[in-house]
Amino acid sequence: MEKENGAKPSPEVVEKEEETTERWRFGENKAVEAAGGRSIRGTLNKVLSSVDENGPRPVIPLGHGDPSMFPSFRTPPIAEEAIVEAVRSAQFNNYAPTNGVLPARRVVAEYLSKDLPYKLSPDDVFLTAGCTQAIDIVVSALARPDANILLPRPGFPMYEARCTYTNLEMRHFDLIPEQGWEVDLDQVEKLADENTVAIVIINPNNPCGSVLKYQHMEEVVDSIRSILDITTDPATFIQGAVPQIIEKTKDDFFNNIIHVLRDAAELCYNKIKDIKCITCPHKPEGSMFVMVKLNLSYLVDISDDVDFCSKLAKEESVIIMPGSALEMKNWLRITFAVEPTSLVVGLERLKSFCERHEKN
Amino acid sequence: MEKENGAKPSPEVVEKEEETTERWRFGENKAVEAAGGRSIRGTLNKVLSSVDENGPRPVIPLGHGDPSMFPSFRTPPIAEEAIVEAVRSAQFNNYAPTNGVLPARRVVAEYLSKDLPYKLSPDDVFLTAGCTQAIDIVVSALARPDANILLPRPGFPMYEARCTYTNLEMRHFDLIPEQGWEVDLDQVEKLADENTVAIVIINPNNPCGSVLKYQHMEEVVDSIRSILDITTDPATFIQGAVPQIIEKTKDDFFNNIIHVLRDAAELCYNKIKDIKCITCPHKPEGSMFVMVKLNLSYLVDISDDVDFCSKLAKEESVIIMPGSALEMKNWLRITFAVEPTSLVVGLERLKSFCERHEKN
Repeated sequence: MEKENGAKPSPEVVEKEEETTERWRFGENKAVEAAGGRSIRGTLNKVLSSVDENGPRPVIPLGHGDPSMFPSFRTPPIAEEAIVEAVRSAQFNNYAPTNGVLPARRVVAEYLSKDLPYKLSPDDVFLTAGCTQAIDIVVSALARPDANILLPRPGFPMYEARCTYTNLEMRHFDLIPEQGWEVDLDQVEKLADENTVAIVIINPNNPCGSVLKYQHMEEVVDSIRSILDITTDPATFIQGAVPQIIEKTKDDFFNNIIHVLRDAAELCYNKIKDIKCITCPHKPEGSMFVMVKLNLSYLVDISDDVDFCSKLAKEESVIIMPGSALEMKNWLRITFAVEPTSLVVGLERLKSFCERHEKN
Repeated sequence: MEKENGAKPSPEVVEKEEETTERWRFGENKAVEAAGGRSIRGTLNKVLSSVDENGPRPVIPLGHGDPSMFPSFRTPPIAEEAIVEAVRSAQFNNYAPTNGVLPARRVVAEYLSKDLPYKLSPDDVFLTAGCTQAIDIVVSALARPDANILLPRPGFPMYEARCTYTNLEMRHFDLIPEQGWEVDLDQVEKLADENTVAIVIINPNNPCGSVLKYQHMEEVVDSIRSILDITTDPATFIQGAVPQIIEKTKDDFFNNIIHVLRDAAELCYNKIKDIKCITCPHKPEGSMFVMVKLNLSYLVDISDDVDFCSKLAKEESVIIMPGSALEMKNWLRITFAVEPTSLVVGLERLKSFCERHEKN
């Protein structure tokens, strides 16, 4: 990695070192393994390993949200060209400031301010290389000793993974399926105490986000600045492309994606109605996933959600995320943001699988 | 960040939450601040803040290594075009495997194998978003409780920053300037014990790298796989560009860069010879930095290396890195990988500054 100042060893030096290192114990950090085990990727890899590689049918990936690879969800050419221009300009080959380049932060602040009753400044914006890094940074900044954090169930397991890794105590509050997945507020009240440093709210308009005191926010922001100094930056030329991407991408692009997603959610919801052992308490109104409940009492030889997904992967080459990975045992998370033709085939295979394993 | 499953609150809900959150204490993680304080960027920002913004002369940045912004060190067009092609292909918009896409890992393995007596396999290669993330991952994977790590002094402060943050005990061994910055091996022997999990060797050919037992290496590699599951990936389309970049970049590009750097190192070394209060124990033979020693006894009003660099920034708009940031108090790290014309001007200003502050 670092090739500065390296000195070549003489043969005697190598020999001497061999003796010395005999006494050393190279070990691993168990916290990393524990955290890795909590990640969506870990669970998904387990399910994927059940797929019959010699099976005749293509794998239908309804397990994770990664729509950009499908033609219906292709990145708009304007975004591609903005990156091309930034790369070719040679103006963005250097290190960026730790919080991001100003023109990019400025357009992001303006874009986000459109939906707010107040205006964000570029200094309110910190650019990261995607959400995974943003979660890493926020969790790290908050993880003081004895602190705890409130996480939604179901949620996004990267929070659990990063909290496990940094030893930040997690306390889960439920989102209530029968109430359109609203937060269980009584539970939140019971869980929170003087050591609660944050509550994760997925939607910015959710109950707790707006009641933080300014002083607390500032403390968090200061802490975030420090950690930005020691983390990876998003590639500068990507940051250089951000103003063009935000300014030039037409509403048509978003309208079309929303249209495709709405149809897919509808299709998913209707197909699942026909499957006895799976119920969907709430038709998805946003995002690209639907949470559905598995009723094991209808099934003969399935022990839990992971077993269900593994056998589904093996017999039907359809990948679905076990709810366990999201703290929701015996639930399933199905992605509908795939090519619509694949979605239809995937849901049909899911149905045959269920019928084959259902009690008579 | 995450916008899945968000539910809108009713007004009553918001009110209730306000009461609840009154009791909370939002705090920060002190380890982050401590780690941030150890970063090069932290020190550099301190020096930069001394620059007279209304000064008539352009700032000469000899403090950090970021050559790509200068015409003489421009990224080769082949690399730019490889990225352009990968972006436009729409083949690399999806998530990559956590260790990187296979074609990129394959060419990296082949490229690195050229200088080795054995062949690396693509599975030996893990792609990260630059060295900062690679250091983050390796330090995190090794940081079990009670462990310690041996770090070179001088070194690259990102190691110190990440070790401070993850509570991995650091033990420093010296690189000996009079012996061409070779490792002080007696010291290494004294520092290492049964809890030493690693030694950081900047050059891959350095003494300790080759004596690790295979079993230990495998443990470290397994641990690294877990942490890759919870960290940020390098952008997939950059990974998609890697095979073209490695295959098509001509030797001319590297030869030219080496030529420019050799001349710059020579110039730097010769100019510094003329400055009484600074000595260079070893002419740089690689990298883009030179470590030089500050002799405070020749100076009238400079208290240490940070004071020297701050006053230099203020009076001459020349940025140099204080050695303190690299565990080398009263040394300086000067970058010579800047546009050669800037380097000449910067070194002249450094000389005038020294002469002005030297004792008669």
